[in-house]
Amino acid sequence: MEKVLVVGAGGVGAVAVTKMAMHPEIFKDITLASRTLSKCDAIASAVKTRTGVAIRTAQLDAMNVADTVALIRETGAELLVNLALPYQDLVLMDACLEAGIHYLDTANYEPENEAKFEYKWQWTYQERFKQAGLTAILGSGFDPGVTSIMATWVRKHKLTGIRLIDVLDCNGGDNGKAFATNFNPEINIREVTAPARHWENGAWIESPAMTQKHQFDFPEVGRKNMYLMYHEELESLSTHFPEIERARFWMTFGDAYINHVTVLQNVGMTGIDPVNHNGQDIIPLQFLKTLLPDPSDLGELTKGKTCIGDIITGPTPDGVEKTYYIYNICDHESCYAEVGSQAVAYTTGVPAMIGAALVMQGVWRDPGVWNTEQLDPDAFMEMLNSDGLPWQLVELDAHPDF
Amino acid sequence: MEKVLVVGAGGVGAVAVTKMAMHPEIFKDITLASRTLSKCDAIASAVKTRTGVAIRTAQLDAMNVADTVALIRETGAELLVNLALPYQDLVLMDACLEAGIHYLDTANYEPENEAKFEYKWQWTYQERFKQAGLTAILGSGFDPGVTSIMATWVRKHKLTGIRLIDVLDCNGGDNGKAFATNFNPEINIREVTAPARHWENGAWIESPAMTQKHQFDFPEVGRKNMYLMYHEELESLSTHFPEIERARFWMTFGDAYINHVTVLQNVGMTGIDPVNHNGQDIIPLQFLKTLLPDPSDLGELTKGKTCIGDIITGPTPDGVEKTYYIYNICDHESCYAEVGSQAVAYTTGVPAMIGAALVMQGVWRDPGVWNTEQLDPDAFMEMLNSDGLPWQLVELDAHPDF
Repeated sequence: MEKVLVVGAGGVGAVAVTKMAMHPEIFKDITLASRTLSKCDAIASAVKTRTGVAIRTAQLDAMNVADTVALIRETGAELLVNLALPYQDLVLMDACLEAGIHYLDTANYEPENEAKFEYKWQWTYQERFKQAGLTAILGSGFDPGVTSIMATWVRKHKLTGIRLIDVLDCNGGDNGKAFATNFNPEINIREVTAPARHWENGAWIESPAMTQKHQFDFPEVGRKNMYLMYHEELESLSTHFPEIERARFWMTFGDAYINHVTVLQNVGMTGIDPVNHNGQDIIPLQFLKTLLPDPSDLGELTKGKTCIGDIITGPTPDGVEKTYYIYNICDHESCYAEVGSQAVAYTTGVPAMIGAALVMQGVWRDPGVWNTEQLDPDAFMEMLNSDGLPWQLVELDAHPDF
Repeated sequence: MEKVLVVGAGGVGAVAVTKMAMHPEIFKDITLASRTLSKCDAIASAVKTRTGVAIRTAQLDAMNVADTVALIRETGAELLVNLALPYQDLVLMDACLEAGIHYLDTANYEPENEAKFEYKWQWTYQERFKQAGLTAILGSGFDPGVTSIMATWVRKHKLTGIRLIDVLDCNGGDNGKAFATNFNPEINIREVTAPARHWENGAWIESPAMTQKHQFDFPEVGRKNMYLMYHEELESLSTHFPEIERARFWMTFGDAYINHVTVLQNVGMTGIDPVNHNGQDIIPLQFLKTLLPDPSDLGELTKGKTCIGDIITGPTPDGVEKTYYIYNICDHESCYAEVGSQAVAYTTGVPAMIGAALVMQGVWRDPGVWNTEQLDPDAFMEMLNSDGLPWQLVELDAHPDF
């Protein structure tokens, strides 16, 4: 395999194609497509300057399956890497099946007008991909993605199973803006305004959005408030590792961020139902996205580090219980210097490139639809270290009491 | 004169026509017109139930001068009372001149896409109204309106001139909503996000919006934070009473209100320049208005009182200096019981009715364009007492030190 089609020209798409261009031995022919051709061309031009590699660009309405199939055939792509909006996962999977190529994404499908983050829609493609002899990799970003692969690696090399897992996502970066999300504000605000949910003793426990808060001292970042949230890897991890007693997801937010989201919620600006405004249907959250800074424009302004990883407790082969904290530290300014994007786009775009590389190389090529924790983690974990996201493993005395 | 045409079917329009219907000896024929006929019909039906008086209704695009002239001729109206948006003042004055009838409004003209509150546009109509033998009364609401007439009354009966004047607008009401303005949110937010400006020693002093804050103990309401703001009566008072050394305007806001406005400003939701959203031009502040509760719907929910008035210091005929505090207290729930609207609409709608009554009766009929402080205050001040807005006059030891 030599040819890849990347769909989506946001910050993550820019990082992914830049890193692919740095591996010409794997990605010999790269096409970047999105609704807005000028965004693709701007990225292609930056990739050329940075790496010397010329990539192709194309205009594409990803919601149109026939157009996507035509573009796949025209480019000869053998893998489609979906870095577009999560609303587009299913139509892009349909296009891959029709054109007979492999598929990889970083975020699970959600319907546009309901805040539902569930794998059920994508998992129903399992048989079709299997019968077509095609591989679909779901959630090959950082979280989901690296955090699940880290869990699999700990489970393979250190423990015999996972009893407790807490995914901790800390962004200690500051972009200097009063309020600006570090990735697509529409997706970000949908996540944080949804009720929190975690897996415990075989059931989902729901609590109101942003009500469970703990302080944690993150390595190289320091003490931050983090909030219990629902995040999609909780569904796949608890499905694929049925021994898990409790799985939770936490994300850090500053007080100013929480205040802005609360006010915007109070006035109805985070709503995803259309509102009639002077005879036009406007979705408030989409209009808010229009007003907010484009996260891709914040790269240059963002300072500080991210620290994302898992705290995992489980039995060892010796029969005792151990707790490991496995994490990556990523520096916003170093990312910007390397690829022209800040760490939030970098930590998603690099794992997308790595997952794609493993599919291209045949390491991760098994017909069917797979979440990343179902695949062998070793090659992926090695590439994290060699390709910009080195990780640390430390043993803790016990699972933290939060 | 017998016939009046009221334009604008918001909360203020509803109060004004209800109070007019309570004076059938003055207003023998009332027509209420607005862009949305159903709003007029709902108000007419409530007026009929409450007072037994039938008023007429009409659909009108107030921006269309020819349509307004046609409606004036059809109804035979002799006075147009403009309770529509301030953007519409000039076109409605044009229509009055063309149809040959008198004019009255409650708020000065402002261009739709600039936050400029100035009388200059309306004052240029002075000669045309004079030559046509028609009267135009500007700003016959509470502030501007009653607060200026109170100043004129104090200047006529207690002092020989005004040295210091502070207009204090306190709304101690609570509507139980996280964030809801008590009058048109578009106008309200334009006012509070504009820089503060006050008149001092012959010049305008500007300071950033909402930065000058003082606590004041309002009668029957209690201690509230009030903020220095620009308000249009400062321009007309300092023009017409040139002896004024310092004129300021203060309005109370709770901390939650300030926080909401700050956040909405941070994200660009208070902007009045159109933003391109999916190919449509959307004015953020107008979209925010669409999202927020309609102030007319909050009447039933609002409890507490308003306290609006002036603190005025100046020389007496005896040559000493005295300070008077003249104010009205208005109770949200009593207003709702009487006319079905809360005190903010009531305190604007009642003075509009009183000003209109004085024009109809010929008490305030002098060809030209007049601000309310230029007219004799006595009949107006009497009607405030008899028609629902009784006032208090107290002498203070000195002008407060804020």
